[in-house]
Amino acid sequence: MSKLWEKGTARLDALIEGFEIGDDATYDNRLVEPDVLGSLAHAEMLAAIGVLAPEELDQLREGLREILRLHAEGEFAMEPGDEDVHTKVENFLVTRLGDVGKKIHTARSRNDQVLVDLRLYSKRKLLETEVALLECAAALVRFACKHEWAPMPGYTHMQRAMLSSVGTWAGAYAEMLLDDWSLLEAAYELNDWSPLGSAASYGVPLPIDRQLVADRLGFAGVQNNVLYAQNSRGKVEGMIVQALAQVMLSLSKLAQDVMLFTTSEYGFFHVSDTLVTGSSIMPQKKNISMMELVRAKAHIVLGYQQQILGVLAGLPSGYNKDYQETKRPFMDSVDTVLAALAVTELTVGSLEPDEERLLAACTPELYATDRAYELVQQGVPFRDAYRQVGVSLHELPPVDARESLRKRTHQGASGNLGLQAQEEAVTRRLAAARERLDGIEHHWRNLVSGEPQKGMGGNER
Amino acid sequence: MSKLWEKGTARLDALIEGFEIGDDATYDNRLVEPDVLGSLAHAEMLAAIGVLAPEELDQLREGLREILRLHAEGEFAMEPGDEDVHTKVENFLVTRLGDVGKKIHTARSRNDQVLVDLRLYSKRKLLETEVALLECAAALVRFACKHEWAPMPGYTHMQRAMLSSVGTWAGAYAEMLLDDWSLLEAAYELNDWSPLGSAASYGVPLPIDRQLVADRLGFAGVQNNVLYAQNSRGKVEGMIVQALAQVMLSLSKLAQDVMLFTTSEYGFFHVSDTLVTGSSIMPQKKNISMMELVRAKAHIVLGYQQQILGVLAGLPSGYNKDYQETKRPFMDSVDTVLAALAVTELTVGSLEPDEERLLAACTPELYATDRAYELVQQGVPFRDAYRQVGVSLHELPPVDARESLRKRTHQGASGNLGLQAQEEAVTRRLAAARERLDGIEHHWRNLVSGEPQKGMGGNER
Amino acid sequence: MSKLWEKGTARLDALIEGFEIGDDATYDNRLVEPDVLGSLAHAEMLAAIGVLAPEELDQLREGLREILRLHAEGEFAMEPGDEDVHTKVENFLVTRLGDVGKKIHTARSRNDQVLVDLRLYSKRKLLETEVALLECAAALVRFACKHEWAPMPGYTHMQRAMLSSVGTWAGAYAEMLLDDWSLLEAAYELNDWSPLGSAASYGVPLPIDRQLVADRLGFAGVQNNVLYAQNSRGKVEGMIVQALAQVMLSLSKLAQDVMLFTTSEYGFFHVSDTLVTGSSIMPQKKNISMMELVRAKAHIVLGYQQQILGVLAGLPSGYNKDYQETKRPFMDSVDTVLAALAVTELTVGSLEPDEERLLAACTPELYATDRAYELVQQGVPFRDAYRQVGVSLHELPPVDARESLRKRTHQGASGNLGLQAQEEAVTRRLAAARERLDGIEHHWRNLVSGEPQKGMGGNER
Amino acid sequence: MSKLWEKGTARLDALIEGFEIGDDATYDNRLVEPDVLGSLAHAEMLAAIGVLAPEELDQLREGLREILRLHAEGEFAMEPGDEDVHTKVENFLVTRLGDVGKKIHTARSRNDQVLVDLRLYSKRKLLETEVALLECAAALVRFACKHEWAPMPGYTHMQRAMLSSVGTWAGAYAEMLLDDWSLLEAAYELNDWSPLGSAASYGVPLPIDRQLVADRLGFAGVQNNVLYAQNSRGKVEGMIVQALAQVMLSLSKLAQDVMLFTTSEYGFFHVSDTLVTGSSIMPQKKNISMMELVRAKAHIVLGYQQQILGVLAGLPSGYNKDYQETKRPFMDSVDTVLAALAVTELTVGSLEPDEERLLAACTPELYATDRAYELVQQGVPFRDAYRQVGVSLHELPPVDARESLRKRTHQGASGNLGLQAQEEAVTRRLAAARERLDGIEHHWRNLVSGEPQKGMGGNER
Repeated sequence: MSKLWEKGTARLDALIEGFEIGDDATYDNRLVEPDVLGSLAHAEMLAAIGVLAPEELDQLREGLREILRLHAEGEFAMEPGDEDVHTKVENFLVTRLGDVGKKIHTARSRNDQVLVDLRLYSKRKLLETEVALLECAAALVRFACKHEWAPMPGYTHMQRAMLSSVGTWAGAYAEMLLDDWSLLEAAYELNDWSPLGSAASYGVPLPIDRQLVADRLGFAGVQNNVLYAQNSRGKVEGMIVQALAQVMLSLSKLAQDVMLFTTSEYGFFHVSDTLVTGSSIMPQKKNISMMELVRAKAHIVLGYQQQILGVLAGLPSGYNKDYQETKRPFMDSVDTVLAALAVTELTVGSLEPDEERLLAACTPELYATDRAYELVQQGVPFRDAYRQVGVSLHELPPVDARESLRKRTHQGASGNLGLQAQEEAVTRRLAAARERLDGIEHHWRNLVSGEPQKGMGGNER
Repeated sequence: MSKLWEKGTARLDALIEGFEIGDDATYDNRLVEPDVLGSLAHAEMLAAIGVLAPEELDQLREGLREILRLHAEGEFAMEPGDEDVHTKVENFLVTRLGDVGKKIHTARSRNDQVLVDLRLYSKRKLLETEVALLECAAALVRFACKHEWAPMPGYTHMQRAMLSSVGTWAGAYAEMLLDDWSLLEAAYELNDWSPLGSAASYGVPLPIDRQLVADRLGFAGVQNNVLYAQNSRGKVEGMIVQALAQVMLSLSKLAQDVMLFTTSEYGFFHVSDTLVTGSSIMPQKKNISMMELVRAKAHIVLGYQQQILGVLAGLPSGYNKDYQETKRPFMDSVDTVLAALAVTELTVGSLEPDEERLLAACTPELYATDRAYELVQQGVPFRDAYRQVGVSLHELPPVDARESLRKRTHQGASGNLGLQAQEEAVTRRLAAARERLDGIEHHWRNLVSGEPQKGMGGNER
Repeated sequence: MSKLWEKGTARLDALIEGFEIGDDATYDNRLVEPDVLGSLAHAEMLAAIGVLAPEELDQLREGLREILRLHAEGEFAMEPGDEDVHTKVENFLVTRLGDVGKKIHTARSRNDQVLVDLRLYSKRKLLETEVALLECAAALVRFACKHEWAPMPGYTHMQRAMLSSVGTWAGAYAEMLLDDWSLLEAAYELNDWSPLGSAASYGVPLPIDRQLVADRLGFAGVQNNVLYAQNSRGKVEGMIVQALAQVMLSLSKLAQDVMLFTTSEYGFFHVSDTLVTGSSIMPQKKNISMMELVRAKAHIVLGYQQQILGVLAGLPSGYNKDYQETKRPFMDSVDTVLAALAVTELTVGSLEPDEERLLAACTPELYATDRAYELVQQGVPFRDAYRQVGVSLHELPPVDARESLRKRTHQGASGNLGLQAQEEAVTRRLAAARERLDGIEHHWRNLVSGEPQKGMGGNER
Repeated sequence: MSKLWEKGTARLDALIEGFEIGDDATYDNRLVEPDVLGSLAHAEMLAAIGVLAPEELDQLREGLREILRLHAEGEFAMEPGDEDVHTKVENFLVTRLGDVGKKIHTARSRNDQVLVDLRLYSKRKLLETEVALLECAAALVRFACKHEWAPMPGYTHMQRAMLSSVGTWAGAYAEMLLDDWSLLEAAYELNDWSPLGSAASYGVPLPIDRQLVADRLGFAGVQNNVLYAQNSRGKVEGMIVQALAQVMLSLSKLAQDVMLFTTSEYGFFHVSDTLVTGSSIMPQKKNISMMELVRAKAHIVLGYQQQILGVLAGLPSGYNKDYQETKRPFMDSVDTVLAALAVTELTVGSLEPDEERLLAACTPELYATDRAYELVQQGVPFRDAYRQVGVSLHELPPVDARESLRKRTHQGASGNLGLQAQEEAVTRRLAAARERLDGIEHHWRNLVSGEPQKGMGGNER
């Protein structure tokens, strides 16, 4: 397809052309809607400053809505040879509208278009990820509440250490995910600034209104310095993937625990038969392979994080084509984390503790420290009590596990996990995340329909 | 030295002993003060719940202050064979105070000690990094203001693209650092929760008061679930290093620009002779080697980030010795970024633009887009204007660069960079960061002196 | 599609099913031919030990050839829901041949099938990479020979350092690629062992003939221990990607040089207009963007290397589903390097030095060291000569650059680059790599046609 | 200390000076001996081409031997302010010998000195690593032979899969290490070329004899192109660390297995009490923490690999200061792997299988596939036999595990592991590696003593 920069002179070598595009176009399919939204806001602004006549704006709006309709029907997919989504959109408008189409690119560059497309894509995806993460946390809290008092060995160094509970185990993961949620929030805020108007990296000698564009797109504000806008390409994606990497690490730890606890040797948990896979050679196998994949995918996201940040290191300022290579690891990371959250939520929901085996695993040595503390309470200095118990482990008296769990009453211990507060925190945040996602979708629908509206604003920066 | 867990039975093999400790002890030297602070708060709490008598608390306080004094004089350094800082502190107290020393370890484990030590270390280091970063941003804003109107070619793809200015270039980096600052803030908040009381990972069957400890140490609050406290080892360090990696990427980009712009070929900037190094073989060389090191060190911090996060992936829950391996990459990353910020601030402060060469580099093709916009303003659709200019590049009329800079008046462009607002933002945040650092130091001094005080509190979580 | 391990009981949850397969199936399309080759050799062996009757072997051969035919016509592509290529092949044979099809999986597992498929895939791809790399090296040597005596500044620290030549510059890259070639060779040897017969990881209680299979497939021999065969999954791919990463690093260095040397500021080289791309906003731009992509793709391959090796770290022995995640980074790395080599070869072939600008850049300070050596030859100790020249740089006498190049006569210097020897080395290896690639293709064609033949053997291990 | 490049003009800023040196000097302590060896060979060459008089050579030799003597006594350590080892050595010679000392740097640069130092360091360290690796492999083969027939469950997906044996398990690791050994060998060959004479990257206008230097230092030959010599800085270290990373991955897998198999839940192996560590709070704990560290250190080496290769990506040709940053991750990787090999060898040597628990874990479902094969041998197609067994798992007949192990007679299976061949391979290679290490040490002693000798030669390149 024709390229925006062709001037009727030398043709690009075919090998180079294929190399330049690669599978980037495939990923651009996900940017059709953001590109249209950005174009709508940009066109409104061009009309507001007099570059477009009102009827030209109407034509462009109609053309852009047509693209959304075609896209919804799968009729606007990138094809081999399409250089990028921005070119495809502009070419469509020129073909459909003639000279009016040739005006849409006034005061912008593909450099700031791809920036704004990615920001819009990320706004939605981050909120979807927050929702999926909080749903997973909710499943963990439910599981923790249900089995709050089920005794379970606590491990350190993969060796049995002290008495713990299923509630403690699951509650720990819920709290971990809540910390990950706050990282997603921090990434959301840094993503929430409109880069449009930075053009090729150096602005334009036209009196454009960047605030209007930011408001129409639902951003918290304008990303100020035009060169910084370009220099932040990849950087914002990198921040987001750093947060996603933390989510994957949390899930990979949970996955490893689930794998251990479902072996024949541990036998603490069962997973529903509808979630396991078999072997082509061993008729008896039930493999928890989705958890293996979650474990492995943590490394995939870490590798993508490395790709994005590695590409950025030492790049001179201004747009560099290198940035194109950050798109795939970024989008694949988003997809990976969304899928891993859904699978983990499903897995947690299907876990069934085997209380008998759990209790049987709570062997006497788990209580060695408790015994030492009894001696402490009789006045023996802790280090002496520790040594005394250490050389008489075989004499530890029998203990009632459930009783013992209840005795750990300080904040965050098995007898005082604060699960209700966790549940409330998760529920509150989940409702807020859903509401925010609805709000932004609504804002964008208004932009498409041409409905006048205020900006969504944001925190003062 | 004697180990806390030895019970007079088998001796640890010497090869293994060396392997277990490695250079970890060296890094533990930085945790002496945090370990003492944690011990002071823990002892106060043990006294408050009746495990220690008031005079025992006094003795422990005196012993711990003695350690601080010795440490300040370089007399409390880790030696080969010292297993870790926690052991060294407890052994010192037992030797000095007898049975009272043996009581300090009641209701805690080295696992939660190292956690709290690292959180205290990180609180200070994050604030120091914020101060250094904001000082570097301040140098950039000063440089931008001074040379706001100096014309300079703007590059894309490492090729001359459009007119830009030295003010735009430097202002872009100031804004980038401000975004990095907000990542440091997000990491600070996640670090600001007290893990003490989680013990080996599973709490203790004693009625300890975790909130009191958190308040005395100046944390925003208690990290609730005891197992999550342990599972967050490495995770919080990883979050911090992720933020530090972003800082290094910003600096590496600046470094690459400075290297290019100081070559004979560009010649845009000069760096002070006191900052450059020479060659052992070529008498004429002046190398900007500190910028080369900054460029390289971005990859060092990325590698450390990978080390920390890689270690965490797929680790089962509860303490694992693997965590020890995260200490070095974490602390080295902190040191690296602090040094790189100081060196970059110094370098920026010494930069001298060569206005003559900058102007000479603003060759006519930089104005090709401006010319296209002139045609747009005469009613030619942008894409047609673009093609028209593209085939008549040799006919571009001469342009006054400074005049042209001033014409780019939209937000964030060379004629409207908002440098004063940047300066105010930097100044305000720098003052706040310094005040916060002073506040926490003051809080800790009170803890050492035994002065009663309130907690520092924090945001509701 | 039906799964090999389904036994008519619980159905796999749809979310999990999608997660398990992901885009793995897409990558399995590249394993259709290897899977058929492996199946052909396996079937021959089953016939040789009496598990299959001769006519059953004939039927299976015909069925497998049919798959190859369909695949060549694009009619055997993996479809959504196909679990993997092994399942698809077996299902096809069962549908087509009935009970005979059900026998093909005797004494093997999908675990050893995917192993052997990847080894066969890698054999071909490594040889193709060697050919592409040597062609690129050949282009560099030709370029070096053509411009052997063109003076050029030599840089250190990105600053002009000493006199060098275009021949030195290009010859350096040719030699670097020859070192990379030897890494590819080392990887080839480690890949060249047949894992078939290791089954699920633990062999089978049947008297299979693993040597026969290895010979028929053209491997150097059998990978002995069955568990090691499985434990080497990902490891061999990792070794290959480590070698590929080195190739990409070489190309990224060359790319960076080409980008610098084609800026307006350096202006040393021109690249053909058919290889450059334009800007959508700046009519004058000619971007060497394929070199930017090569620079960026080095980080992509480093990230893939990290993904593969990260997945392996700490995995317990025996097959783990995690291995599936190594397939994509592996195959994408292979594709990336093959494309980058072709693009680089094309770019090098199109480079035109601008001798005038090169000569103009050979400014007097490049000869400072030469001047010091003149003093050395007059008896001044080097360090004194160095200091003497260092303080009188403005007095350096004019020098004839070409003359000076010829005076550097020691091995590997500009006057004695040994380009002819390099050319011979490249030519010899290129011929050998092509011959080897032809040989293995011929061997496989014989396997498909059922032609009896000897094994290809290999070096004694 | 005085810098080689100071000319009595501007002094380097103290902050920059500290930043430039960092902890690089610490690592330079390991290069004192290599630097002296390189200087001896260089001085011999300078004498051979007439730059040094015979008596000057004698003086330099004496001075350099003095450095070795001081270094052996710990009296030649790098001190704060020493720029690097090369400067320290030259300064020592100048102070001791006056003008003769000032001549040693003729025709070389610190750039090629550090290159040759690292190659010499690597020659020795690679051979030491080969010896340590082969000793570890030997321990594994001994363990495998001793417990060849001990039954053990074989796992896939961390679930019990099929019958295996302790011999199979340990033998798999021995073979894996042998593959790693061949990677070390490949790295050794690429390291074995002398870069001396490349000087600052562009050779020298003096008739130096690079072959003589290579011979005296025991290299296989000369690294030809002077610019490639410099461009290979970091690349060779990267190749070595890539091989070391593979070793660590092997050890991390073994470590994870040992950790699993020594839990209470598995209980397959015991580790000697002299190798385990305790807990400061739980008196009963016996932690296999050295294996946890090995597992974690795999990620450390992967991160170092990333650091080295990341620094190289996109660096322009010629020396860049960035290379300095590769020294630490390189040397630390070498140390890490040497220590991990020694610890693993010790651990393997102390492992005691618990045959009773191993046998008890060989539960009937392990034989499901065997049963399917029995049906196959009765003529049932495998896929039918598989399904038949799959739905009647509870009816599997009892099996004699040892008997069954012996029945797996094909190459590489439990009944035919080829352990004797492995043992011979390990022994042969170990002897060869030790001999090679002795040979190179002997060669270097002769260089120090001034003994005339031939080069060690190498394979034709």
